[in-house]
Amino acid sequence: MELFTSTDRAREYRQKLLGFMDECVYPAEPVYAEQMAAAGDPHHHPQILEDLKAEAKKRGLWNLFHPHEEWGPGLTNLEYAPLAEIMGRSPALAPEACNCSAPDTGNMEVFTLFGTEEHKQRWLEPLLDGTIRSAFAMTEPGVASSDATNVEMRMERDGDHYVLNGRKWFASNAMHRHCKVLIVMGKTDPEAPKHRQQSMMVVPIDAPGVRVVRNLPVFGYVDREGHAEIEFTDVRVPVTDVLKGEGEGFAISQARLGPGRIHHAMRAIGMAERALELMCARAESRVTFGRKVSERANIRDWIAEARIDIEQARLLTLKTAWMMDTVGNKEARTEIAAIKIAAPVMALRIVDRAIQVYGAAGVTEDFPLASMYAHLRTLRIADGPDEVHKLTIARAELGKARAAAETAG
Amino acid sequence: MELFTSTDRAREYRQKLLGFMDECVYPAEPVYAEQMAAAGDPHHHPQILEDLKAEAKKRGLWNLFHPHEEWGPGLTNLEYAPLAEIMGRSPALAPEACNCSAPDTGNMEVFTLFGTEEHKQRWLEPLLDGTIRSAFAMTEPGVASSDATNVEMRMERDGDHYVLNGRKWFASNAMHRHCKVLIVMGKTDPEAPKHRQQSMMVVPIDAPGVRVVRNLPVFGYVDREGHAEIEFTDVRVPVTDVLKGEGEGFAISQARLGPGRIHHAMRAIGMAERALELMCARAESRVTFGRKVSERANIRDWIAEARIDIEQARLLTLKTAWMMDTVGNKEARTEIAAIKIAAPVMALRIVDRAIQVYGAAGVTEDFPLASMYAHLRTLRIADGPDEVHKLTIARAELGKARAAAETAG
Amino acid sequence: MELFTSTDRAREYRQKLLGFMDECVYPAEPVYAEQMAAAGDPHHHPQILEDLKAEAKKRGLWNLFHPHEEWGPGLTNLEYAPLAEIMGRSPALAPEACNCSAPDTGNMEVFTLFGTEEHKQRWLEPLLDGTIRSAFAMTEPGVASSDATNVEMRMERDGDHYVLNGRKWFASNAMHRHCKVLIVMGKTDPEAPKHRQQSMMVVPIDAPGVRVVRNLPVFGYVDREGHAEIEFTDVRVPVTDVLKGEGEGFAISQARLGPGRIHHAMRAIGMAERALELMCARAESRVTFGRKVSERANIRDWIAEARIDIEQARLLTLKTAWMMDTVGNKEARTEIAAIKIAAPVMALRIVDRAIQVYGAAGVTEDFPLASMYAHLRTLRIADGPDEVHKLTIARAELGKARAAAETAG
Amino acid sequence: MELFTSTDRAREYRQKLLGFMDECVYPAEPVYAEQMAAAGDPHHHPQILEDLKAEAKKRGLWNLFHPHEEWGPGLTNLEYAPLAEIMGRSPALAPEACNCSAPDTGNMEVFTLFGTEEHKQRWLEPLLDGTIRSAFAMTEPGVASSDATNVEMRMERDGDHYVLNGRKWFASNAMHRHCKVLIVMGKTDPEAPKHRQQSMMVVPIDAPGVRVVRNLPVFGYVDREGHAEIEFTDVRVPVTDVLKGEGEGFAISQARLGPGRIHHAMRAIGMAERALELMCARAESRVTFGRKVSERANIRDWIAEARIDIEQARLLTLKTAWMMDTVGNKEARTEIAAIKIAAPVMALRIVDRAIQVYGAAGVTEDFPLASMYAHLRTLRIADGPDEVHKLTIARAELGKARAAAETAG
Repeated sequence: MELFTSTDRAREYRQKLLGFMDECVYPAEPVYAEQMAAAGDPHHHPQILEDLKAEAKKRGLWNLFHPHEEWGPGLTNLEYAPLAEIMGRSPALAPEACNCSAPDTGNMEVFTLFGTEEHKQRWLEPLLDGTIRSAFAMTEPGVASSDATNVEMRMERDGDHYVLNGRKWFASNAMHRHCKVLIVMGKTDPEAPKHRQQSMMVVPIDAPGVRVVRNLPVFGYVDREGHAEIEFTDVRVPVTDVLKGEGEGFAISQARLGPGRIHHAMRAIGMAERALELMCARAESRVTFGRKVSERANIRDWIAEARIDIEQARLLTLKTAWMMDTVGNKEARTEIAAIKIAAPVMALRIVDRAIQVYGAAGVTEDFPLASMYAHLRTLRIADGPDEVHKLTIARAELGKARAAAETAG
Repeated sequence: MELFTSTDRAREYRQKLLGFMDECVYPAEPVYAEQMAAAGDPHHHPQILEDLKAEAKKRGLWNLFHPHEEWGPGLTNLEYAPLAEIMGRSPALAPEACNCSAPDTGNMEVFTLFGTEEHKQRWLEPLLDGTIRSAFAMTEPGVASSDATNVEMRMERDGDHYVLNGRKWFASNAMHRHCKVLIVMGKTDPEAPKHRQQSMMVVPIDAPGVRVVRNLPVFGYVDREGHAEIEFTDVRVPVTDVLKGEGEGFAISQARLGPGRIHHAMRAIGMAERALELMCARAESRVTFGRKVSERANIRDWIAEARIDIEQARLLTLKTAWMMDTVGNKEARTEIAAIKIAAPVMALRIVDRAIQVYGAAGVTEDFPLASMYAHLRTLRIADGPDEVHKLTIARAELGKARAAAETAG
Repeated sequence: MELFTSTDRAREYRQKLLGFMDECVYPAEPVYAEQMAAAGDPHHHPQILEDLKAEAKKRGLWNLFHPHEEWGPGLTNLEYAPLAEIMGRSPALAPEACNCSAPDTGNMEVFTLFGTEEHKQRWLEPLLDGTIRSAFAMTEPGVASSDATNVEMRMERDGDHYVLNGRKWFASNAMHRHCKVLIVMGKTDPEAPKHRQQSMMVVPIDAPGVRVVRNLPVFGYVDREGHAEIEFTDVRVPVTDVLKGEGEGFAISQARLGPGRIHHAMRAIGMAERALELMCARAESRVTFGRKVSERANIRDWIAEARIDIEQARLLTLKTAWMMDTVGNKEARTEIAAIKIAAPVMALRIVDRAIQVYGAAGVTEDFPLASMYAHLRTLRIADGPDEVHKLTIARAELGKARAAAETAG
Repeated sequence: MELFTSTDRAREYRQKLLGFMDECVYPAEPVYAEQMAAAGDPHHHPQILEDLKAEAKKRGLWNLFHPHEEWGPGLTNLEYAPLAEIMGRSPALAPEACNCSAPDTGNMEVFTLFGTEEHKQRWLEPLLDGTIRSAFAMTEPGVASSDATNVEMRMERDGDHYVLNGRKWFASNAMHRHCKVLIVMGKTDPEAPKHRQQSMMVVPIDAPGVRVVRNLPVFGYVDREGHAEIEFTDVRVPVTDVLKGEGEGFAISQARLGPGRIHHAMRAIGMAERALELMCARAESRVTFGRKVSERANIRDWIAEARIDIEQARLLTLKTAWMMDTVGNKEARTEIAAIKIAAPVMALRIVDRAIQVYGAAGVTEDFPLASMYAHLRTLRIADGPDEVHKLTIARAELGKARAAAETAG
């Protein structure tokens, strides 16, 4: 893969990160499990995570994602991609340890690009420092939120404030013990053109009228960072906390979701790699009917197909990252949509087969496979279901067909 | 489907059961969720279940599974199949409400066929009465248990007792608050021919030396009835508690697993039907980009494919049931293997697509889809992974080819 | 399969047909290949076929398909299904040998139901006798013909005649050396309600203005019976040759296509069975890297999956046949659509894998696999593509959902 | 795709080739069809092909594949890949027009690397000049040839000659009107270590004892260049016509097949692109039930999935090409195996769906889809079936697992 990741600093970060994984992160996995079990609270924030964060900072593996040099190493998407993949191998620990976990990364980018000075001081700096966490409240339980015009949360102007009423859910990270702030999407003007109806606002999680109703489990998992259902009742937000300006919600969300999607894809590839590794290890170590499982041709087919599929998805992710770097997120939107679809589907197939090789052990917490499955499955829905992204790609392709037909005709 | 379920009593039970589902079971689902949430204990036994059991008994919907008239309605497998399917639509409640839940059904059959008078009095009667529950301890964490010769639990003769040492896991039902007894598979004679090495014994769950180590979660779910890891240390079992005789373990397990597998298949079809129903209802009720989701041709394809696949799997299940009734479990073993594989795979595809139509809601507990997925996924592993059953089918098919070649040659 | 085919006469015909296959049809396959090769004309009508027809007649295996006792054994669809499957095993010979080949079967039914006395004398009797053949001209090259309202052929009234102008293609059988008559679908009244615009007419293939433009190959195959493109220029058809009446074209095509679709499905299952048999035989006879191909677990998976899939598709076909017999073609339309989709898809997968097991030999004419593939692939398009039939099924399913919602609401 | 194809000359060749396709090749397709039809001989060599060859030479688009500057532009694999893809869009014309068609390309490489001076003069030069063609005779009808140790052709030393006896088939190109020479693989020493048993020899197609038995059709297609079954009876080959040396057959075939496989993959991608283009054009131009086919969400899914899959396969092909250039064919063998599997499977899925969108037209010769399908399907078998290449990949992956286990242990 040298072809793509050719810079010296990229190689250097890769080596450092691999070392951190081997020396600190993988050994921390059982410790994490113990600390969480001991706490008896699924949203507990365990000490091991703070230890890892301190170590990552010390090793210069902090804010790797941040494209602006002021705040991190300032890597390009193409340089960051292999690092995100590596972090994806230990999804519960590595991204947060390096302050690269969703949705904080996306929120930090939004604050960097569209925040006021006050936002930067109050929210961005502690986020970059890893002392607070944030959530993003866009999806709603009552409507199909992949169509942004469906958003029902009202944000009504009242003097120097907007008054928010509505209900959000799947605000990931909102149950994190350190979560302090929400970025909220809603409708300021239902009569405006459809991509100008929405605005985004900054709302402290303890603002009056904000009520975390419940956590939403994912395939039975109560994630530590949580996915909250939040009720907003007459929440008053000063106009200075509108990001970028009234009616800019849709535009910000487009800016925000591009990198978010590719980060998810990169981590999905890391999960797939780890699942393949686990599958091989198990197939080597178990015997049935007198032969190692790894000698069976059907299992070998699965292993080979996994390798083929991972390679292809990784290359598409790298190409997408490179396009984002060179022609910009907007021009790369077909590729972003493609990798957003392709990586989780690919990883799910591999994880599912790894589970099959593990037998009963595969569905338990003794191995990370079942929880990877649950997480990856949500990626086919989060930030818009696959089917919506396929429409984007098909539209572009049919546009070419029409252009060709016009030229020909 | 009248073609298959042509007896009057089958039709009558079907009507009664459908009424019970509509009037009692579906309305009990939210109550159940509330009682479980209120208890704060995933293994809590909620009152609503006892209420349902009482009602089912009153309506004559008790022990529907039991083939022997003495203990239940004495239905054939073919008559029972559509009933099991209907119970599968509410998998957490209906089977237990009608005393038809696994692994108790299989254990009751084993006690019926192979139990001593004492076993029948002490264990079978309260099981048939629904006052106690039981578990089946076969799978082991340390070996690939689909190959029975791998079993490592030792059962060593010592006078009038056997002494059991070993570790089992995925003993489903063992965390049930009413669980009193285990049927345990182990090796009495590692030197015997390979299908004569194993024996099955009856062990009270509170016998000295039996220690429930932990519950095993399934995709994050802590099932109420649980899947236990159990350690056996010098557990002394009287020789009278050996079922059928020393060395008969493999034979009993063959007898036991046939009906168990088809019951799972039947319920899987019920889950698929419910998932399809839910998928249609959601697609009708949600709008994206100006059109109902149900108007999109890709979603219509999913709906149609679901209907096609369910119909086929159901017919194969019914045929298998009918063969078990007419030529016996042994002659029907290819069909049993086939339906054991086909039904969960089919149901998983439908449930997965239903989740996709539900978006974020699909992975939560607001709908039964994600938990159905987790449960169905384990069915591809439980009682032997798909790959082992495919070998059974392929062997039969290749045997025909060899016979034909010999005839021709 | 006894469950479904329980009549004595069905069993008897099955035995007789199996005997005919073994004693006459399979041995005729190489003879057929030689006679065709020797003729050097892909549309040649070889003597062996006439010999087989004579033998089938002698054995009472003639017009097995015909539901009316006057013309054949008068079997129900359920009785006929296993026979059609058996004939499908040798698709180039057996169906025609027994006078059960498409589209003649459908055309004979149309003449039986809607033909005048003259039609019966002139066309139906020689068709039933196997002395002439017929074609069905519905599909058009210029439009998507799965939507009947797209049909462009004009049929304009002019006194006692209609004048036909237009172009049809994929008129199967029209290149058959014995083909004498076409049933043609066209538009008599473009202004009528959309299912009353079309009419069907009987047109001798040598009528003035009828020109067979060319044969259409299928995946490179020039089928003996052919698939013709036919130009109609001012073809004058007497009003007495309108079937059933003006505007009845759509209704006849619905009546005609039901049985046609299930016959295709039945034969597809026969092809799948033969492909599976061939796959097993090859896997047993070839050795790679020191082991028989049949010992490889991936090939065993394919064999097992083939058996599972065939069983399911066959059962759905039988159920559909039984519904057609008991509740009628109209009530069975969802099942007919389902099996029309399911059987070819299933058979294609098996044939494709059998080809893979055969290696290079699989794509040649040394084995019937590649030609089965080509034929089965067209079944996913003929009489409407899968996607159109899925709409039928989805519509029915969503109708249930809406009815349930109204009841609930 | 600029990322990979960054050299100026690569870009220049690409522009020139695109111009040649638009100005000459696509317009030649109908002419080719007419000339072939007029000749009435499937192996006819039509004038249009010679015209295209002359034009390609004039434009400097000749021998693009050849890595050695002496004979062609001397492009790297990475530079050549996008050109091979473009040629693949018109598979019957463009590769031969540019003297880049299989198996001549592979044979030319073998002659370049291992041929004597006489071979170069007599065979290589006219091949490079496009005046003669050649075939490669490795596969045998009697054994599974993917295991080279199965080869049965005997090559027995007799003085200064070897005497060849055996039967080969699927010697592609051997029916080409210009084919003059065969490279033949056989066994010189059945007792040698298994990779030293085989030798390759140069045999004029008109040598005494060489008999072309028949052409082998592929899915009904009689390809112009043909796939011959050839019988060798006491064919005497001078020892000077052994390539590289006795026992070197396996080694040469490894060297030969690497580039051959990637060329096939590249062209497969070109076919997939053209199929996607055709699918979009058809979906835009046809209307069913009141809406353009391109507006249906299921067709849009197919289009999007095609784009996603093509992108991934292309990137893997480019990466493989780049590895062959930088670390060599041997180090790149996993990647070569991967792309050999991935590209045809991907292209087949797209072509199959395009056929479905075209309906009946899709299986005819009016569009290149069905013939592409037939050709692509053989690629899953040629040069070893997918399953053999998967073993290569799995072995490498399991090797890593074992190494990791040893390190850990």
